[in-house]
Amino acid sequence: MKIIEGGVTAPKGFMAASVAAGIKYENREDMAMIYSEAPCTSYGVYTKNIVKAAPVVFDKKVTDSDNSVRAVVVNAGIANACTGKKGMEYCEMEALAVAESLMLSPKSILLCSTGVIGKQLPMDKIVAGIKKMSHNLHEGTEAGTKASKAIMTTDTVNKEVAVSFEIDGHTVTMGGMSKGSGMIHPDMCTMLGFVTTDCAISKEMLKKALTTDVEDTFNMISVDGDTSTNDSLIVLANATAGNPIIDSEGENFNKFLEALHYINETLAKKMAADGEGATALLEVKVFNALTKEQAKILAKSVACSSLVKTAVYGHDANWGRIMCALGYSGADFKPEDVTIHYESEFGKILVCEKGSDVDFSEEDATKILSSEAVTFLIDLNMGSAEATAWGCDLTHEYVSINADYRS
Amino acid sequence: MKIIEGGVTAPKGFMAASVAAGIKYENREDMAMIYSEAPCTSYGVYTKNIVKAAPVVFDKKVTDSDNSVRAVVVNAGIANACTGKKGMEYCEMEALAVAESLMLSPKSILLCSTGVIGKQLPMDKIVAGIKKMSHNLHEGTEAGTKASKAIMTTDTVNKEVAVSFEIDGHTVTMGGMSKGSGMIHPDMCTMLGFVTTDCAISKEMLKKALTTDVEDTFNMISVDGDTSTNDSLIVLANATAGNPIIDSEGENFNKFLEALHYINETLAKKMAADGEGATALLEVKVFNALTKEQAKILAKSVACSSLVKTAVYGHDANWGRIMCALGYSGADFKPEDVTIHYESEFGKILVCEKGSDVDFSEEDATKILSSEAVTFLIDLNMGSAEATAWGCDLTHEYVSINADYRS
Repeated sequence: MKIIEGGVTAPKGFMAASVAAGIKYENREDMAMIYSEAPCTSYGVYTKNIVKAAPVVFDKKVTDSDNSVRAVVVNAGIANACTGKKGMEYCEMEALAVAESLMLSPKSILLCSTGVIGKQLPMDKIVAGIKKMSHNLHEGTEAGTKASKAIMTTDTVNKEVAVSFEIDGHTVTMGGMSKGSGMIHPDMCTMLGFVTTDCAISKEMLKKALTTDVEDTFNMISVDGDTSTNDSLIVLANATAGNPIIDSEGENFNKFLEALHYINETLAKKMAADGEGATALLEVKVFNALTKEQAKILAKSVACSSLVKTAVYGHDANWGRIMCALGYSGADFKPEDVTIHYESEFGKILVCEKGSDVDFSEEDATKILSSEAVTFLIDLNMGSAEATAWGCDLTHEYVSINADYRS
Repeated sequence: MKIIEGGVTAPKGFMAASVAAGIKYENREDMAMIYSEAPCTSYGVYTKNIVKAAPVVFDKKVTDSDNSVRAVVVNAGIANACTGKKGMEYCEMEALAVAESLMLSPKSILLCSTGVIGKQLPMDKIVAGIKKMSHNLHEGTEAGTKASKAIMTTDTVNKEVAVSFEIDGHTVTMGGMSKGSGMIHPDMCTMLGFVTTDCAISKEMLKKALTTDVEDTFNMISVDGDTSTNDSLIVLANATAGNPIIDSEGENFNKFLEALHYINETLAKKMAADGEGATALLEVKVFNALTKEQAKILAKSVACSSLVKTAVYGHDANWGRIMCALGYSGADFKPEDVTIHYESEFGKILVCEKGSDVDFSEEDATKILSSEAVTFLIDLNMGSAEATAWGCDLTHEYVSINADYRS
């Protein structure tokens, strides 16, 4: 597997467009379109929040069916969540507008929205944006990057990644983009994520790959513990790479899974690092647990603790808060067997051994915690399972952003 | 039932003392003692965190047994949590010191600690403090108030309350004090809470009253979602009021329960309102739920949401975040049936009807949200059960306090 330039337009046959539709933001693009020249096998995982945005309900119907997908349209600024029947009608209207502009079946269209909850979409602006983008689709890195910027809300950086790998002498490419910075605590997957590939793969195997991998990647990040109404991660595979179709487990499926895992983990970590107001990516690795499930619960509990997150912000080696968050996680373990190290590019330091304090240099610990990427290594000394969760620090800026987001 | 002045020293036969032992804080008292002239029936509820502080383990043994309790000693500054065998040995030493000073059995002593996790108690200072307090026990309001101040950590106000009521012509008095401001998300009960009463009541009925009531009071507040290692709520009943002993359900037990509920709810709300950095108490009332359990889960989910809490701080009527937090709570309901009002001393306003937006005055909503006590009224339109949770806003000051707590 090779890491390459680009994002959703890296695989063969995918084009993208973006436009400043004036939905909420000024002086920037706020709508994006992904288009595939060939019909795509698709699968999507969506928020488990009972309050589901209209486009989530709309898309799930499509990606659960055998319909081919040809285009995805995304808008930033308004989430089309808590919008009742009108919100669903607007989805139908939007899909019709895309279908007409691109001469496709309305059943081959996916829609995503992100932004404020409880407001209706300005359909005149949405439809005008769709028409403009339909005439402005482009191949290549630049179009993909512009699309990844157009879907941002409070994100401070755009997020994309691409890889290529070989299957039976055919080069297969996979690319992805995502957005998300607040209300990030994915349950099935995250805010908005898109993965494209020219790989030929059956729907069944695509579903298997996505649902398995998302549990170790997007579902292991948290910015603020709030599971959004709009979480969607969609994979489109247009089968133009020429590889023999992947329709069962085996070596080729594993190659596909390796690539998908790299794309998902990279986008998930980018999202955690760009958490609203964050100054540091927090990586929590739990080792030597009895089961993977237990390791995941413990790692997430630490990554989600407000007190752990503020201590990281303050570069304060307050390891007692890590023990506390492990303790209330709901997973069973022996506090008196736990060992904790902090690690970053500035070094590694032991701060807790057998559940109690050890002598360590506060100065060294503060230095290690002042990195932009801090790792906690938590050894349970029980079994051999492990898991990693990602989060970020909790800062003054997070409060500033969210005390005044809507207005 | 009558609300009266005072706290833990309001009931007959209870005395208190406090001292500046120099454990962590300068220029203030940081140890307190509650003493009962008569043996007390006691019961305690403690943190469910797997990582339990040494005094929690110590006290649970005593209050689960048939031992009478005569004295409680509390220190602020160091939590005696994650301190291994030495931490337990220090508890034994501390109880012995109290027993010697007051000429009591060491089995009649309770100990509580609150503060930094992972540090050992300075036993010389602790023992010196105990000796001083033993010679300085006083009846009356002033001693109780000083004790309630001595147990504060990041609290900005001391918390106490007292009531009296009649049982068969005898006046029974009940008082309480508590501390807690951060790491507040009680699971069984909260940081440190103490309730004293001169009521005669059997251990069995005391246990029943406390375990039932704590579920609707202390277990319904949250400051930051972090369940502490030291949560303890202890009730002492010294039977000096002269009432016929309450040893079964009935009118007298209900009077006791009413008083205990008032004490617990008042202390719990004071704690939420004094949450670290808080500018407002947030009260979340969920009505017309199918079951009380469902109403509690939904109310707590809203009160714990970082995004709801920052919106309250910003006085921003971002009701979509309330819908979102209801949706990911894990409780089932119909989003399209939900109605939400904001209420405070400045008025009441409808912001969401049948799960969708309604026209409302942003100006009026902002005014209502600028109160020091804001209530969300959430009508599920499903059944007739209800529950209330209490929290506070999430502010810049919360981040400042916790980015630099230890140092």
